[in-house]
Amino acid sequence: MTKNTKVNAAILIIGNEILSGRTQDTNTSTLAIWLNSIGVKVNEVRIVPDIESIIVETINILRKENNYVFTTGGIGPTHDDITAESVSKAFGLRYEIHKEAFKILEAYYQPGEFNEGRQRMVWMPENAELILNPTSGAPGFSVENVFCLPGVPSIMKSMLGGLKNKIVGGEPILSHTISLRTVESEIADSLTKVQNQNKDVEVGSYPFFHAGKLGVSIVLRSENKSKIDHCNSQILEFVNNKKIEIVDR
Amino acid sequence: MTKNTKVNAAILIIGNEILSGRTQDTNTSTLAIWLNSIGVKVNEVRIVPDIESIIVETINILRKENNYVFTTGGIGPTHDDITAESVSKAFGLRYEIHKEAFKILEAYYQPGEFNEGRQRMVWMPENAELILNPTSGAPGFSVENVFCLPGVPSIMKSMLGGLKNKIVGGEPILSHTISLRTVESEIADSLTKVQNQNKDVEVGSYPFFHAGKLGVSIVLRSENKSKIDHCNSQILEFVNNKKIEIVDR
Repeated sequence: MTKNTKVNAAILIIGNEILSGRTQDTNTSTLAIWLNSIGVKVNEVRIVPDIESIIVETINILRKENNYVFTTGGIGPTHDDITAESVSKAFGLRYEIHKEAFKILEAYYQPGEFNEGRQRMVWMPENAELILNPTSGAPGFSVENVFCLPGVPSIMKSMLGGLKNKIVGGEPILSHTISLRTVESEIADSLTKVQNQNKDVEVGSYPFFHAGKLGVSIVLRSENKSKIDHCNSQILEFVNNKKIEIVDR
Repeated sequence: MTKNTKVNAAILIIGNEILSGRTQDTNTSTLAIWLNSIGVKVNEVRIVPDIESIIVETINILRKENNYVFTTGGIGPTHDDITAESVSKAFGLRYEIHKEAFKILEAYYQPGEFNEGRQRMVWMPENAELILNPTSGAPGFSVENVFCLPGVPSIMKSMLGGLKNKIVGGEPILSHTISLRTVESEIADSLTKVQNQNKDVEVGSYPFFHAGKLGVSIVLRSENKSKIDHCNSQILEFVNNKKIEIVDR
């Protein structure tokens, strides 16, 4: 249905709390929107538990199949934070104290507060590049095409700005939404025709229920604005012919 | 760190709208909480695009590695709804009109409303078992250990009740949370000791920021209540010794 854009990524969410349902993951959506804006398409997301062998194996699969891999979670100071050690093993690198990270956290904390628990956060794969953390000090890191970010959503989000120059994206992925007062089955055939005539545009159809009324949002995605416009005009044509109301959503 | 319980599952979220960040997935959390309550542990979640070859391949991996697989998304009437056809291909089954589903939808709609678009929703793998839909008519289905549910969260949730007798779980996974007015680095060493002495209990540590104050929730998970209690008492011991305040969360 769609071709991948030239630059793609996988997201790896690490943490038992997501798999148990206790915590609702929001990092996928934050990362995906940001990545789209710099021309990187998310091909795949995996959520895995805090088990080293699984993290190592998954990183090694994803980093070979994608231009970039972004992990969230598991870089804090407690026993269940095993991302840095797992990434070291995935790349066959030493797991050691990162001197620059040590200096950053030593300066960040009050004298005497940079205790053994906190020092655990400066253990990283050798020669890792730091991802600075404007919110809470402890940096993330990258090794080759794997970028490791924290799991706490507000902290993770605050670190994306510092990452921008390290990611080389393709054309930004543009999207256009047309929301209709209809149901999917009324437009399914027309939409199939439009998709078949516009192979380079991803045509998505998403029913919604809002303020007591049913509707469908059609979402067009492509790196090429004129292709979106062309597709959009074909949709407006059948919408007009069928006398379907266009609504805000 | 933890052993898997005897019965486990994978969740496969199907849909470009999740990978683009447009839609925030909530089905993972809903499914995981429900599965835990009937003694099924979620081992892994994958989010994949609306691309048949990827869906087929992923289903064939997950169904062999897990007792159950739950998919959400892609069973509506539009061109991007390709889950049923993909599951047919994964199992090497014919993709055909399901007579019982046809009757259900024929009765559900007003005369004349069961149009070609809607009829697309009764195409399923041959001999699929139906999962009834109390909300919007169109059933989900299962083939062997793969259960296919819709993507719309409220509809998906409404169908879980009808699924309960089809899933044979192990012991329900119990959890207990202790929330503390502290930071992770203050308790990291003590918590590592507790985890090492309680290998059958999953000990998670999750920082939070609530009402302007920092804290940490410790979550204990196991099928065995007395093991959780034992672990809990060891935690309360170091919490008391360190004079850390216990808080509601």
